Amino acid sequence: MQETKTDPGSAPTVTVRADIIEAATRIFSERGYHAASMAEIADAVGIRKASLYHHVRKKEDLLFAIHETLIDELISETIAVSSSSESPAEKVRGLLHVTMRFIARNRESVTVFLSERHAVTGERWQALVIKRDFYERMVSQIISDGRSSGAFADLPPEIVTKALLGMANWGYTWFQQDGPLSADEVAEVFTAIALRGLEAP
Amino acid sequence: MQETKTDPGSAPTVTVRADIIEAATRIFSERGYHAASMAEIADAVGIRKASLYHHVRKKEDLLFAIHETLIDELISETIAVSSSSESPAEKVRGLLHVTMRFIARNRESVTVFLSERHAVTGERWQALVIKRDFYERMVSQIISDGRSSGAFADLPPEIVTKALLGMANWGYTWFQQDGPLSADEVAEVFTAIALRGLEAP
Repeated sequence: MQETKTDPGSAPTVTVRADIIEAATRIFSERGYHAASMAEIADAVGIRKASLYHHVRKKEDLLFAIHETLIDELISETIAVSSSSESPAEKVRGLLHVTMRFIARNRESVTVFLSERHAVTGERWQALVIKRDFYERMVSQIISDGRSSGAFADLPPEIVTKALLGMANWGYTWFQQDGPLSADEVAEVFTAIALRGLEAP
Repeated sequence: MQETKTDPGSAPTVTVRADIIEAATRIFSERGYHAASMAEIADAVGIRKASLYHHVRKKEDLLFAIHETLIDELISETIAVSSSSESPAEKVRGLLHVTMRFIARNRESVTVFLSERHAVTGERWQALVIKRDFYERMVSQIISDGRSSGAFADLPPEIVTKALLGMANWGYTWFQQDGPLSADEVAEVFTAIALRGLEAP
């Protein structure tokens, strides 16, 4: 059984079984985090409520584990793109494909993440912010490198980063796995706009 | 006192005072829709809970009124852009400015809208979907017109629409009124990317 180790620096460590995270994600997404109960999640996993408390101390642990699983996955895939030997333009293409596939695969968890982020607080929230900032700096660095090399236009890398991530992340509100275009086909349209849009004049 | 009349076709009509909508938006955004109580909202408006029930029958009425106020505002401003005599490129610029200003002004309500849309159900949800689709068709028409006139590249208008709206709407997760760039300055960066990105080769 795959496990997600949530160890954000000094914040309390939680190790949660993947099937528990999956069930919690589905139930939070369907019923909302506040309305969902630990009993429902235990039911969905097929264990007793008392056994669930053996794995996680409280509902917030599950929410944090969902958030951290998501961001760790996104960081790991983005590192693969950003550390490759491709040109900045090819990295932008890779980034948009990775992000659209990520959104397509994780729509439920991303919805929970965006809806319930205020429910994660304190050190745990700080740990997520550090990871999110690290992720955005990786993307921003690709844009800066393109600008320094003269390939990309002179636009502020942080805002370009928000534009590219916004294009792809917004997919969580509309992308359908059984829709007319695949995640990669959508990413190619976004890449066409982004690469021509960023090209140095 | 400005009032918002929520009359989605055959769905029940709700007329809610603007100060009640504002207080409900703030409280839903801070505490989450499910955790927020009608008593807190009444307190924030400075009326008794019994008086609040004089204005709205239940919490869901407030959520629906927030949703409808938002989408009506966005539609009205987008009609002004889409029905102007400007070129498709200038309409794209206008759209990005209108949307970024809308996001900057309504970050709290947009967060409530996106987080709690599943809490609006039945006829009321259908009424919102009809308005949302109307709005997206307006945007998509601008892109189609640009493509037909030969100004824009041959990219699918529905996906281009999602790209442009995603860029701007994603601002709800990061845009700060007191940040380094104004909503209009951010919109100009997005416009630079979008117009060069959409330009016919």
